[in-house]
Amino acid sequence: MANDVLNRIASELRKAPEVALFSHISPDGDCLGSMLALGLALEKLGKRVFLYNPDTVPHNLDFLPGASQVINVLPEQLPQTLCFVDCTDLRRVNLELSQLPENAVILNVDHHISNQNFGTLNCVESTASASGEIVMALIQELGVPLDQEIATNLYTAIITDTGSFQYSNTKPKTHRLAADLMESGIDLLSIHHRIFDQKSLAQVELLRRGLSQLKLYSDGQLAVITLRKEDFEEIGAAEGLSEGVINNARSIEGVEVAVLFKEIEPQKIRIGFRSNLWFNVNELAARFGGGGHKRAAGCSMEVSLEEASQSVIKAIEEELRIGRSH
Amino acid sequence: MANDVLNRIASELRKAPEVALFSHISPDGDCLGSMLALGLALEKLGKRVFLYNPDTVPHNLDFLPGASQVINVLPEQLPQTLCFVDCTDLRRVNLELSQLPENAVILNVDHHISNQNFGTLNCVESTASASGEIVMALIQELGVPLDQEIATNLYTAIITDTGSFQYSNTKPKTHRLAADLMESGIDLLSIHHRIFDQKSLAQVELLRRGLSQLKLYSDGQLAVITLRKEDFEEIGAAEGLSEGVINNARSIEGVEVAVLFKEIEPQKIRIGFRSNLWFNVNELAARFGGGGHKRAAGCSMEVSLEEASQSVIKAIEEELRIGRSH
Repeated sequence: MANDVLNRIASELRKAPEVALFSHISPDGDCLGSMLALGLALEKLGKRVFLYNPDTVPHNLDFLPGASQVINVLPEQLPQTLCFVDCTDLRRVNLELSQLPENAVILNVDHHISNQNFGTLNCVESTASASGEIVMALIQELGVPLDQEIATNLYTAIITDTGSFQYSNTKPKTHRLAADLMESGIDLLSIHHRIFDQKSLAQVELLRRGLSQLKLYSDGQLAVITLRKEDFEEIGAAEGLSEGVINNARSIEGVEVAVLFKEIEPQKIRIGFRSNLWFNVNELAARFGGGGHKRAAGCSMEVSLEEASQSVIKAIEEELRIGRSH
Repeated sequence: MANDVLNRIASELRKAPEVALFSHISPDGDCLGSMLALGLALEKLGKRVFLYNPDTVPHNLDFLPGASQVINVLPEQLPQTLCFVDCTDLRRVNLELSQLPENAVILNVDHHISNQNFGTLNCVESTASASGEIVMALIQELGVPLDQEIATNLYTAIITDTGSFQYSNTKPKTHRLAADLMESGIDLLSIHHRIFDQKSLAQVELLRRGLSQLKLYSDGQLAVITLRKEDFEEIGAAEGLSEGVINNARSIEGVEVAVLFKEIEPQKIRIGFRSNLWFNVNELAARFGGGGHKRAAGCSMEVSLEEASQSVIKAIEEELRIGRSH
C-alpha cells in the first residue's frame, strides 16, 4: 500500500470542513460501499459530507448504511475537497474538470490499473481486490474505529469485487481484512442474500429461455446461449438483466468457453464471453472489436444474429482445435 | 479449540507406525479434503497410511491431492490406530464396532454438534466451520508444514462447508486460516471451478424444466418447483442431481421460502425446503416427519404429488400469514 500518499490524503481530509465524495455510474457494491464507508467515517470526524452518484442506488444495494443520503444532483456549491472512489477517470462520474471548483483538492482512491491519475493526490493500488481495501486503510489512518455500519459497507465492497473470495484478485490479505470486518459485527447472511441472491422473476424467465436453446460445440468445450429481441420484449426485461445467464453456460462440466448472443436490434448483436481455465477471451473479443479480461470479455457486432453466431462460433472452434498448447 | 485433546490425538498419531483414516459415505469436500490433508501429513512423518471411504470419490473432487489413493475396500488387516474425520458416528462409514481391531485406538475428529463421541479420544469442535479447520490445527500440532497439496485439501474442505465463506458458520478465524492456506500456493481459480462450477448437462436440463413450472404463492414470498418422475426419467438424471434447483427458487427477489417437490414414485414424494432470512424450515419439516436446519431442511411423504403439494403449501401459506413476529 502506498502509505505515504494515503497519509497525505488522510491529512487533506482531516483539515477539510466539508468533503464531496464521488462514485461511478452503474454503481456496484465496491464503489458505493467504499464511498459510504468513507462518508460515515468523515461524518464521525464532524465533517459535512456530500455523497454523489450520477445514477440511482440499485435496489439490492439500498440496504447499505448511508445509502439513503446518496444524491444524484450535484450540490450548487461543491466543497474545495473532492474525493473520487473506484473511478478510473472523471468520465466515470459523468463530469468534466470544468465543473469542479477552481483549485479544488482532488483525491483519487482506486484499484483499477487503468486509472488515469487525474487527482491532486492519487492512491491507486491495483493489487487491492477492491477499492474497499484501500478505503479501509484510509479510515484506519484517519483513526476512526470500524463500527458495524462502516464494516457492512467495506465488507460488501470486498465480496462484490471478489465474488465472495472466489476470483483471482482475492489475496491472503483480503481474507485478513474480512476477518477484521466480521469482528465489527456485520450480518453476514443478510449481506450475502442482498448481494448475491436477488434475482427478479424476469431474470429467472430469461434464464429459462436461455437454457431452452443452449447449444454445445467442439465436443462440449463451447457452450452457446442466444437471447433474441423478442425474448427481452415478451418478458419486458432490460438487456442488463441477462448478465447471470452466461454463467450457467460456463459452469457446465467440460465447458471451457461460454458465449451469450444478445439481439439488441435486428442488426445489433451484443456478445458476452466467459472462459474457465485457459482460453483467452480478451484476445478473442479484440478480434471482433471488443475487449475485457482473460476470463470475461465482450464485443458488439452490427450484423444479423445468424452472421454473428456463425463467425464467432467458427473462430472459437478453431482456437479450441489448436488448443491449450497454443 | 480443545487443545488438550488435540495434543493427545497428535501424540497417538506420532507413535503409530501405520494409521487408517476414515471419511463418510456420500463424500464431500470437507470429509475428503480433511482426510487427505491429514493422510499427506502423516506420510511426511514416515507413516504407512490407509485412506478409506465407503463410496467412490466424486468426479468433481478427484483433483484433490491424494484422491487416487482412496480405497473403498477395507484392508485385510487394519492398523491399531484409526482416525475418523467428519463422521458423527460409525454408521457414517458403514461400519460396526465389531469390524474394528480389538483394543484399537479410535481417534474422532469432527465439527458436527451431533457427534456421538464414539472414539477413544474425541476432538469435536462444533464452532469450527469445517472439520478441515480442526485438521489444520492437528497438522500444525504434528509439526508438518503446510505445503500446496495439504493446503489445497484443507482449503477445499473449508469452502465446501462455508459455501465460499457465505454461510453463517463462517467466522473471522475461518478467514484467517484461509489466508494462511492461500500463502501455501493453492490454485484458487481451479479449486473454485471444480467445487462450485461443474454442472452436468442433465442438471442444466432439470433446472430448465424446474424453472418452466415455477409457481409463486403468498404474494411472492413462497416459490415452489416440482419435478415429476418423468422429468428424471426422460433426462436420465438421478434424483440427487436436482440439488441446485431449489436455490434458483430461493434466490428470487421477495422469496422467503422455497420448496422443491420431487416425485420419486407415484406415492413417494421427497420435499426440500430452503428459507432466506427468518422462516424456520426445520420446524416446518418436522411437522411432516422430516428435519434439518433452520434455513435448509427436508422430508418425505408417502402420498400423491398433488396431496403433498396441497398440504405443504397450505402449511407454509399459513405460517407466512402469521409472519415474522411469530
